[in-house]
Order: sequence, then C-alpha cells, then structure tokens
Amino acid sequence: MTAAITRIGQSRYSPTRGRIVAHAGVLTTVATATKKVPSAYEQARDALNNIDQNLAEAGIDKSRITTVMVYLANISDKPGFNRAWDEWVDRDKLPVRACLGVDLEGDDLVELVVTAALDA
Amino acid sequence: MTAAITRIGQSRYSPTRGRIVAHAGVLTTVATATKKVPSAYEQARDALNNIDQNLAEAGIDKSRITTVMVYLANISDKPGFNRAWDEWVDRDKLPVRACLGVDLEGDDLVELVVTAALDA
Amino acid sequence: MTAAITRIGQSRYSPTRGRIVAHAGVLTTVATATKKVPSAYEQARDALNNIDQNLAEAGIDKSRITTVMVYLANISDKPGFNRAWDEWVDRDKLPVRACLGVDLEGDDLVELVVTAALDA
Repeated sequence: MTAAITRIGQSRYSPTRGRIVAHAGVLTTVATATKKVPSAYEQARDALNNIDQNLAEAGIDKSRITTVMVYLANISDKPGFNRAWDEWVDRDKLPVRACLGVDLEGDDLVELVVTAALDA
Repeated sequence: MTAAITRIGQSRYSPTRGRIVAHAGVLTTVATATKKVPSAYEQARDALNNIDQNLAEAGIDKSRITTVMVYLANISDKPGFNRAWDEWVDRDKLPVRACLGVDLEGDDLVELVVTAALDA
Repeated sequence: MTAAITRIGQSRYSPTRGRIVAHAGVLTTVATATKKVPSAYEQARDALNNIDQNLAEAGIDKSRITTVMVYLANISDKPGFNRAWDEWVDRDKLPVRACLGVDLEGDDLVELVVTAALDA
C-alpha cells in the first residue's frame, strides 16, 4: 500500500501550513512574492518564479500547470499582473485562469494557487 | 503513452489563457457573461449558459459538475444569482458551491470556476 | 460500471447546493460556522468543526486534507482564524492553504472550501 498523499515543504510563512501537496496525480501549490515591493508587476514575477521553484521541487515545470487562481489586492493591478503572466506563461500549454480582487494580508499584492499534473 | 492533459480552447478574452482543461478525469472551466449587462441575474444566466457550452465542447453536461465557485462583484447580488442558479441547476446532481464577493474587472458581475467529472 | 461521483448531503442553507462531493478519490466540502457569533475565532472553530463532521460523514478525517481555501469577511480577522487553525490542524499532515478577505453574505465571518483524499 502506498501513501497517496505527498506533502512537500512547509509554508515559508508558517509552520502550520503546507507549501506543496500532491495526491492522485495532481499537485497543488501556493505562492506569494518573496519581496513585498510596491509594484504588482514585480510581485507577480516574484510569485510566478516561486511557483516555478515549487514545481521544480516536485520534479515538474510550468508546462504541467492545469489551473491558476490569481488573487490581487487591487484589481486595478490586473494589467501589471497580465504583463508578468504573458512573459511567463507557456503559450503551448495554457492553463485555465481566473483573476480576482480580494483582501490580502500585509503588503502582499499577489497570491497564486496553482494545480498541475504530476504526469503528462 | 497518452497525453494526460487535454486543453480545449483559449479564453475568449485573451490568447494567453485556457478556457477548458481536463486532467485525471477532471475538467476545469471558467466563464463570465458574454454580455456585460447591468443585471446580475442576466449575467448569471449568461455565464451559466457559457459553462453549459464549455461542458458540451468536452462532451459532458451539467449533471457531471462536482464543484462551482461563484464570484460576484457585489455580494448583494447573491439573491439574483441564486434565482438563475435555481432555474439552472440539476437538482438530482447538486454540486458543492461557495459564493464570494470579490472585485472583478470591468463590467463583469459574475465569474464562475467549475470542476466536473469526465466519466460517471 | 460504477458511479464515479458520490454526492453526500445537501447544504444546510439551501436545497439546491451540495455539501460534500467525491470524485476520482478526491472529496470536496464546504462549511461556514453554524452559529453566526461576532467572534471570528469562534466562527473559525465552528466552521472547522463542521469540516471535521463532513469528513467523518464520508469516512475520513482531517489527516486526509490536502488543501484548505479560507475566506474571511475581514482580513484583519486572520490572526483569530490562525489561532483556531493552529489549535485544530494536524501538524503531521499540513494542508496547502490560502487565506483571502472577501465579502460573505449576512453574518458569516468565515467560509472554508476543503479538498481531501478518500484513500491514503
């Protein structure tokens, strides 16, 4: 019998939350920007880079991403987020995406929740 | 070896986002209303209809839906959304649902993120 | 041929929404607090307890949780939510979590959407 759930790494912000979980061939991971700078574009690049790193830690890359939920502290930052997204996304492997304005804690401008396929 | 991820269609609003993705037997799709009219009830009907069309494009229908995340630009529109939902939902196949007030871009009043089972 | 989707229980708030759905080895469930008291900490405990009950109804427990989406009516309640979370979470089985401030209906201060593995 194999353990069907793989938990990789803690949140960098709390010892009581996970950062990457995989189950039934699907990985879910969450990221914010490491540097809480005032530019949503820069935070977006940073958070997307953290997603890349989380995927790499699980042995996959962004071509396996299936969905991305984008949470912005200011929906007016969507053009800046989109600029970072367009520079980053794998255009042959487009994820389904929704982008919502919500309240985030502290100086976070961007939060991402990503699902990806472990096998493809 | 088969490709485990199926990507169907681009977003109607951007060439860098997908509209439907399927992996491991689960389809995820996103929709807003096509016509950005001022009535949340009308936008809800429109967005739910777009979900129906996306599911049809993947060969399934609303009886296979497992979860629906409902995002409203004004949480006070929830009664109007619920009216459209009650007219639309398959009462023998109730999805799990959450309904949240968030900021949406432009004139969107409703955004939906839906997961469904490809086989049942 | 087996039915791949299992729908357990209606929402306690509406006859047109489900409370627990399972498909492809993954359970999704939603909860708010039963008692809409003014304390976010108390609502968090209550909602997390409702998650426990929903999981139990499906024959599993919180050790199987993979992801938790936390929606707070006031992001400033995050410390109170975290207190309830830290008292509740299985520290050997940390879920991936995101916590967002959104508008909720009525007196709800906390809403949770949880995914869990049916087998592990």
